[in-house]
Amino acid sequence: MAKEKKLVEEITSMDVDFAQWYTDVVKKAELTDYTSVKGCMVIKPAGYAIWENIQHELDRRFKETGVENVYLPMFIPESLLQKEKDHVEGFAPEVAWVTHGGMEQLQERLCVRPTSETLFCDFYAKEIQSYRDLPKVYNQWCSVVRWEKTTRPFLRSREFLWQEGHTAHATAEEAEARTQQMLNVYADFCEEVLAIPVIRGRKTDKEKFAGAEATYTIESLMHDGKALQSGTSHNFGDGFAKAFGIQYTAKDNTLQYVHQTSWGMTTRMIGAIIMVHGDNSGLVLPPRIAPVQVMVIPIAQHKEGVLDKAYAIKADLLQAGFKVKVDDSDKSPGWKFSEQEMKGIPVRIEIGPKDIEANQAVIVRRDTREKIVVSLDSLSEKLTEVLDTMQHDMLERARAHRDAHTYDALTYDEFVKTINEKPGFVRAMWCGDQACEDKVKEDTTATARCMPFKQEKISDVCVCCGKPAKAMVYWGKAY
Amino acid sequence: MAKEKKLVEEITSMDVDFAQWYTDVVKKAELTDYTSVKGCMVIKPAGYAIWENIQHELDRRFKETGVENVYLPMFIPESLLQKEKDHVEGFAPEVAWVTHGGMEQLQERLCVRPTSETLFCDFYAKEIQSYRDLPKVYNQWCSVVRWEKTTRPFLRSREFLWQEGHTAHATAEEAEARTQQMLNVYADFCEEVLAIPVIRGRKTDKEKFAGAEATYTIESLMHDGKALQSGTSHNFGDGFAKAFGIQYTAKDNTLQYVHQTSWGMTTRMIGAIIMVHGDNSGLVLPPRIAPVQVMVIPIAQHKEGVLDKAYAIKADLLQAGFKVKVDDSDKSPGWKFSEQEMKGIPVRIEIGPKDIEANQAVIVRRDTREKIVVSLDSLSEKLTEVLDTMQHDMLERARAHRDAHTYDALTYDEFVKTINEKPGFVRAMWCGDQACEDKVKEDTTATARCMPFKQEKISDVCVCCGKPAKAMVYWGKAY
Repeated sequence: MAKEKKLVEEITSMDVDFAQWYTDVVKKAELTDYTSVKGCMVIKPAGYAIWENIQHELDRRFKETGVENVYLPMFIPESLLQKEKDHVEGFAPEVAWVTHGGMEQLQERLCVRPTSETLFCDFYAKEIQSYRDLPKVYNQWCSVVRWEKTTRPFLRSREFLWQEGHTAHATAEEAEARTQQMLNVYADFCEEVLAIPVIRGRKTDKEKFAGAEATYTIESLMHDGKALQSGTSHNFGDGFAKAFGIQYTAKDNTLQYVHQTSWGMTTRMIGAIIMVHGDNSGLVLPPRIAPVQVMVIPIAQHKEGVLDKAYAIKADLLQAGFKVKVDDSDKSPGWKFSEQEMKGIPVRIEIGPKDIEANQAVIVRRDTREKIVVSLDSLSEKLTEVLDTMQHDMLERARAHRDAHTYDALTYDEFVKTINEKPGFVRAMWCGDQACEDKVKEDTTATARCMPFKQEKISDVCVCCGKPAKAMVYWGKAY
Repeated sequence: MAKEKKLVEEITSMDVDFAQWYTDVVKKAELTDYTSVKGCMVIKPAGYAIWENIQHELDRRFKETGVENVYLPMFIPESLLQKEKDHVEGFAPEVAWVTHGGMEQLQERLCVRPTSETLFCDFYAKEIQSYRDLPKVYNQWCSVVRWEKTTRPFLRSREFLWQEGHTAHATAEEAEARTQQMLNVYADFCEEVLAIPVIRGRKTDKEKFAGAEATYTIESLMHDGKALQSGTSHNFGDGFAKAFGIQYTAKDNTLQYVHQTSWGMTTRMIGAIIMVHGDNSGLVLPPRIAPVQVMVIPIAQHKEGVLDKAYAIKADLLQAGFKVKVDDSDKSPGWKFSEQEMKGIPVRIEIGPKDIEANQAVIVRRDTREKIVVSLDSLSEKLTEVLDTMQHDMLERARAHRDAHTYDALTYDEFVKTINEKPGFVRAMWCGDQACEDKVKEDTTATARCMPFKQEKISDVCVCCGKPAKAMVYWGKAY
């Protein structure tokens, strides 16, 4: 068909060149564009609307757990960044430095925040005096800057948008509980809203956040078999509290250090949506995150009554709570179908003179392209059902894809061969020694994605060195 | 009374020292705090929640007019900032410069955006080819940086939060209509939601935005008689389009320059709320912007049934759509009243054993302290009425205050005497010559706030030089 031919011409097939397919989809679905600022992107309306929905959903879930939003400065004085040793080593090499304000050179350089642990610690040191001031469960929505060398839209850019939660607690137990709670908020959000299944687990020491005692992560698998770290939650213990002097007077009148956490999710999740659900016709958005869920496309719209019917359907569906638009432009229906598919709008409703005569419309699912003829009298009910089914199917399809691309390896030969030849996760036992992680990375470029909370004993020995194993690890090549 | 004594001790009276009163309220109502980053503030939960409500209300109004949200980089290459001559002269002296990324010196300095006209122009130059691509009506919510020497929380800080809308249109008429439309959105928002009456008008050339053909403004009057520029909307004509080469092919196949606008509102509006509505007991929030509208305060809460009743009232009111909390802390009722008043929560509901017996509660308005005894059976209806009345009264009280502090001056002696002795707006005629504005500023520190759209001819001649007058101007000393 002409339509499909056009699409094939417009975007690279994902089987031919996945990276180019990704770039094409980002461009053709009008999500981002390049700018004159190297490594920084414009997020265009279609992309930003997805981010607004992510913000809305996450923020609601945060607030249900008692989170309050704040805003801290975007600048960090160099001396403040240096207070926690591991943290500064992790971030100093990749920050942007402000050296001049107005016409004058600054007495102290300021970095543009790459993350705000140090600012929150400085703030908490002043705010927290007594056990009555605890817990502090604050979050901010902002942009951060990391001076990356190679960048890709959404996945890695010098500036990106995110939220960063920072909490302070009276006890280690409470901090640990909050660290896990927020990881679960992220995991549930990914699965319920983005239809992206995740592995919940703990990072190895090599992969954990600079300054953290423990980093928990959710890891997802993209269509090309590469892993994407999708959200992290860190338990800092009292390490930052000791570096910044954040102490409180306990009920028994003793002076104690607080225990802290931080957790973040970023605009890279838009990249995850593209790479988990997209196909060779473009983007496919899960109904619960789609800024437009339904595109009504009139067929033979020049004929009397067709456009009116399309507008009437839109009005009814808006009233029923759907996010719906009509494409009443002067393009051909085939062109409109292609655009709706490229933009990933979950369903389209085709309505033409014959449909009107038969009091029906045709619902077409974006993911399966299934056509469902439905009476106009039950359009709203059917649409609810179709969108719910589609949301469910997208999650299960992604889960099946991930499971079909998850392999176990018992020997190092098997491990290396699988990692190199079969894109996906490889599950294998590990001794806990960083030397083995380093060797795996050198031999294969793969990294330990996480030690899943749901451990399974595949064998007794480390897949790399043969020493007694301490944990089962998900390994993979990652974005 | 002990309560009032405490309050008097805690915050400076506004009649004694308005600036200190403002600082005290900002601190005691827990809106912001200072940071280790000179000139930058923390916006704390109580302050940020107001900003979230401002965002929510404005964003909804923007979207009703067709605005789409986007996100552009926070950095501007120096060469890009310099493309429009007036614009760079206006902003270059007060920007922060990034000179190093990671360990390396940048080939070209980047400034942290003080405003994003140049970035939007660069973006639009690529995006706009044909009349089909117009109009572009984009907005972004972000922070900007201006390297101010003296700073005050919300009113003037080196970093502040705002939204900036940037549009491109096919014709000058359409750009002018959009400039005025957005000014009216701001004005309506201020009056309807913030209960702050505004004067709508045009800036003089001396006061207009760097690079604009015309700047429209809404000006409000604070309790101390100083003016606050509360929102601006700029018409750029095709000046930026010519500097950045933003051209489109028109329907008649000719190449045309676009016409552009920009418009912004900032976190300084939180300062305006404080200074228009606050009193010697603290903040007073208009019900429509208050994050918490109702504080239920149990009296003798240790007595059986009191706390249960307070929670039941909260549940009912939440159900009815009010934003409500219960103060069930172990503080005394008097202390709780003071805190509720300090934080500006619009009403409190007092409920004690005697009230429960009589099936009633006491509603106390924050602004007038009026006590209203109401049957528990009609609490929700009465509360709606009280909050609506309070919202209305606050606007009218602020309008009456402004009108009572607006003076006309016919001679220069009268003008100078009024400006110096009577805090408020002075209305006077002006010849249109910048020399007179300069003289007024030198003699009195006052500036031309705006030429109101509703012109009135007070006299035929300029109040300063005596030449024929061109416009009536609102003059004032401003924040």
